[in-house]
Amino acid sequence: MSVRLALAQVNPCVGDLAGNSALIREVTERAVAEGAQIVAFPEMALTGYPVEDLALRRSFQRAAQKALEQLAVDLQRLGLGDVLVIVGSLGTDHDGRATNCAGLLRGGVVEQIYVKHHLPNYGVFDEHRLFSAGSQPCVFAEGGVRFSLAICEDIWHSDSPAQQAATTDADVFLIINASPFEQNKFNVRRQLCADRAAETNCIVAYVNQVGGQDELVFDGGSMLVSPDGELLAGSVRFAEDILLVDLPADTDTTVTSERIALPDRDHWSGPFDVGITDTEGPGELYAALVLGLHDYVTKNGVESVVVGISGGIDSALVAALAVDALGPNNVHGVMMPSQYSSEHSVADAQGLAERTGLAARKIPIAPMFDAYQDALNLTGLAEENLQARIRGAILMAISNSEGHLVLAPGNKSELAVGYSTIYGDAVGGFGPIKDVPKTLVWQLARWRNQWARDNGKTEPIPPNSIEKPPSAELRPGQLDTDSLPDYAELDAVLTGYIENMSGTEELVAAGYDSALATRILRMTDFAEYKRRQYPPGTKITKVAFGRDRRLPITNRWREPDIS
Amino acid sequence: MSVRLALAQVNPCVGDLAGNSALIREVTERAVAEGAQIVAFPEMALTGYPVEDLALRRSFQRAAQKALEQLAVDLQRLGLGDVLVIVGSLGTDHDGRATNCAGLLRGGVVEQIYVKHHLPNYGVFDEHRLFSAGSQPCVFAEGGVRFSLAICEDIWHSDSPAQQAATTDADVFLIINASPFEQNKFNVRRQLCADRAAETNCIVAYVNQVGGQDELVFDGGSMLVSPDGELLAGSVRFAEDILLVDLPADTDTTVTSERIALPDRDHWSGPFDVGITDTEGPGELYAALVLGLHDYVTKNGVESVVVGISGGIDSALVAALAVDALGPNNVHGVMMPSQYSSEHSVADAQGLAERTGLAARKIPIAPMFDAYQDALNLTGLAEENLQARIRGAILMAISNSEGHLVLAPGNKSELAVGYSTIYGDAVGGFGPIKDVPKTLVWQLARWRNQWARDNGKTEPIPPNSIEKPPSAELRPGQLDTDSLPDYAELDAVLTGYIENMSGTEELVAAGYDSALATRILRMTDFAEYKRRQYPPGTKITKVAFGRDRRLPITNRWREPDIS
Repeated sequence: MSVRLALAQVNPCVGDLAGNSALIREVTERAVAEGAQIVAFPEMALTGYPVEDLALRRSFQRAAQKALEQLAVDLQRLGLGDVLVIVGSLGTDHDGRATNCAGLLRGGVVEQIYVKHHLPNYGVFDEHRLFSAGSQPCVFAEGGVRFSLAICEDIWHSDSPAQQAATTDADVFLIINASPFEQNKFNVRRQLCADRAAETNCIVAYVNQVGGQDELVFDGGSMLVSPDGELLAGSVRFAEDILLVDLPADTDTTVTSERIALPDRDHWSGPFDVGITDTEGPGELYAALVLGLHDYVTKNGVESVVVGISGGIDSALVAALAVDALGPNNVHGVMMPSQYSSEHSVADAQGLAERTGLAARKIPIAPMFDAYQDALNLTGLAEENLQARIRGAILMAISNSEGHLVLAPGNKSELAVGYSTIYGDAVGGFGPIKDVPKTLVWQLARWRNQWARDNGKTEPIPPNSIEKPPSAELRPGQLDTDSLPDYAELDAVLTGYIENMSGTEELVAAGYDSALATRILRMTDFAEYKRRQYPPGTKITKVAFGRDRRLPITNRWREPDIS
Repeated sequence: MSVRLALAQVNPCVGDLAGNSALIREVTERAVAEGAQIVAFPEMALTGYPVEDLALRRSFQRAAQKALEQLAVDLQRLGLGDVLVIVGSLGTDHDGRATNCAGLLRGGVVEQIYVKHHLPNYGVFDEHRLFSAGSQPCVFAEGGVRFSLAICEDIWHSDSPAQQAATTDADVFLIINASPFEQNKFNVRRQLCADRAAETNCIVAYVNQVGGQDELVFDGGSMLVSPDGELLAGSVRFAEDILLVDLPADTDTTVTSERIALPDRDHWSGPFDVGITDTEGPGELYAALVLGLHDYVTKNGVESVVVGISGGIDSALVAALAVDALGPNNVHGVMMPSQYSSEHSVADAQGLAERTGLAARKIPIAPMFDAYQDALNLTGLAEENLQARIRGAILMAISNSEGHLVLAPGNKSELAVGYSTIYGDAVGGFGPIKDVPKTLVWQLARWRNQWARDNGKTEPIPPNSIEKPPSAELRPGQLDTDSLPDYAELDAVLTGYIENMSGTEELVAAGYDSALATRILRMTDFAEYKRRQYPPGTKITKVAFGRDRRLPITNRWREPDIS
């Protein structure tokens, strides 16, 4: 006795009930053609995830309910009524409160509903705000194999009703997820699956969403883990996939698996393939950034982007990511030199365009700068910011005229300490490297060029953009180091402050200089108002600016300088 | 037997432990000089409220703990050791998790701690994210009068341990609060106090914070309510105040009260006085906006503001609010006419400057516009937006040079449907009327002028700015009604969609045209990305854009057109 289960790692879109239903029907057909008897889709696959306050809207609750019932009917009509299809969606409880649930569809009806028990309400998650919690497990058997079903956060705790049921009544602990990517998280998830498998003495079948949604990117990496912690099978990451597994009723026998890629569903055409075990180095981060950017642009109905290319490393990396995500024909670069732009800047920007094949144009800013200066006579910081704001206005004008989405090139280190001009280089619909510290910007650029060399392709990023000392070029001979600490030190302190929530005391204990730490922390605190108006960008670190880190702007708390 | 209780309605600042400690010491001295034996401060008065993710920071937790203990010592040193001082603050539980708590200080020590039981996690509140909940009541007696203590949300439910204790063991149910203002909320709170008083057969003593904190404004309105629902005494609203009440041990005897204003603590010098029962009409809304604007500017260490004055009603109201909040010498107006600006616009802007006394200057935008156009040759929307963006850059240049904070003049109706230019008129550190629907903008302007007439002062807003049809003046003869529905209809539909979370079905059932509703709802959905980058502004409605309404940008859900 055995059963063939398909873990359908798909990329739905938030709010697109019709599109997601079509996706689920299509993938179910494909899996069933390969012999699947159970097809499991991710958490809230029907509605997309996270739907945020849409969950509270009665009209959306009704529509989701109707879409789930209609999906059962449609699957039956397609001749798939014998298959058990498990679909995460939005439900309501007896009091009319929203739930994060999974419907078990078969024979044209919703046979059973499981309601998520543990609701995450930390980091980027607000599920106590949105959902009422379930308390009942959901067990079912198919081909002699017994399953207990859970949803995502349920397995981050060892006391869920689903785990109780898995321990006593199941052979397979099946978990449907929409678990967002961050650095090192895949290995945490894998360990979690191993722990739960050992505790329940079940095979753990884990299916995760893939794709970008605003600041989040879901990395997929669906997997099957044995009770002794072995990774039996895994999907690719950062792409849609169906993982087919044959589960025997007797868990001692061997489990076999077969992967079906979904290349026809071209959510991402980038050149990078991240396997289930590729969790080291910048490759998975680069893939996350490409997918996050691709999906933000395309799911918002845009085809092309425009980016100011200065010859510097940040805009070069952003352009390279955009070309990988959207193709060179959909990426427009604008050189906007001023009197302070060096010759190498223009040459490096041109080199980037030639290497990547993006369409570049040049618009010098001197005439606009002079027109403002005749009226305003600015000096110092005001004069520097003016140049950045003229560039922002030019990019927005091109965006308004030609329909491209503007990409903001700011990195996390700059955003932290406020080394960016609001309404200037901060202009954009999306900030692809918003959560990438500057030292990682260099690493990613080097990694991307190395990948090109290894694969016999042209390096997209001019080596000089990587090697030269960074400069905003807003005054003669300016260098970032005039205003900022060395980036290696800066990023180390910022990681402590932002990701680990350390104060000066902890930072000094970890070996950092108190005066340096204090300086960086104060710059970071003061820049909160700028971050509040910054565009969204893909989260890749443990704590990204945005939903992850909610601080008041009006805030007189300052970490003490204990030097 | 009786006791004199002071309800200290103060205006702390988030994160300012030293400043808030000084404020509490000072107000305690003042209250004790008037005979107070118990002084009760608002929820988290020592840390300010809401502290958001600061609550999770270990260094801030330690500092708050130390500040509370030091405050007890300092009060003792000031000879106030016999007085019971109740101070809301940030604590930690046995597992090191943060709590929203109140310390009872006396004799140089923290005698007792009460931990808030009901944690709000809806609307603007994220307390499940931040705090662990308490489970124990806190009862104490003073002068023969028995008290049960609660914190804010505790009394929005009738099952708190504090209410149980009030019912069985207390004469007075004392609640310390940081309850943010919104339209009609004062009356809800008053009814709540009456209900709890009746249920517990206690006198309810309710002390609320006052002041602005980012998007929130706290209105004060501290009060004493008898078991039969009578309002025995109340503080002013939108200003600091001490309400002194003599509470007899026998609740049947009469309670007396005495108000002490704190005019020396000049958090707000506006001309408007809102009494405890002034809950009708635009007066309380105007006061909320003035206080929210004043506190955002001053608590962020800025003294002055700059605003583009177009002659239109939005910028006129913003300028009037700013003059009331900060005085005319701290308000800088900039007229930035273009070829499309009408004569009446310049005249009305000049009239506004003369009436209010703000400092106005004129910077025509034609030279900058021509410089961009020589390079870009824009038409249509791109040309219109360019004008707004030149104005934004000019305001930011003045801000950078002179240190004024830029005010964005957008109203809620515009922000809803995206009728504003991102990086153009949306430029600003604060948007004072961000949560004010357009129809209410007119009402507030008329109310402010009427107040001036009633008090023998100059009307600040030129009547023509109120009466003329609104226009963005970005192309010849343009009127808002070219692109938007009539504002009365627009605002009615927006209120249904945003504040009541109605879908098309509910709106049509309420009598609105489906096509009109669908058009407005789609405009609102589409503009989400613009709102995400808009500056903060004072919340006055039930659901403001921002923390109150969390929706994805990438969102394909559209309310169905059911016509």
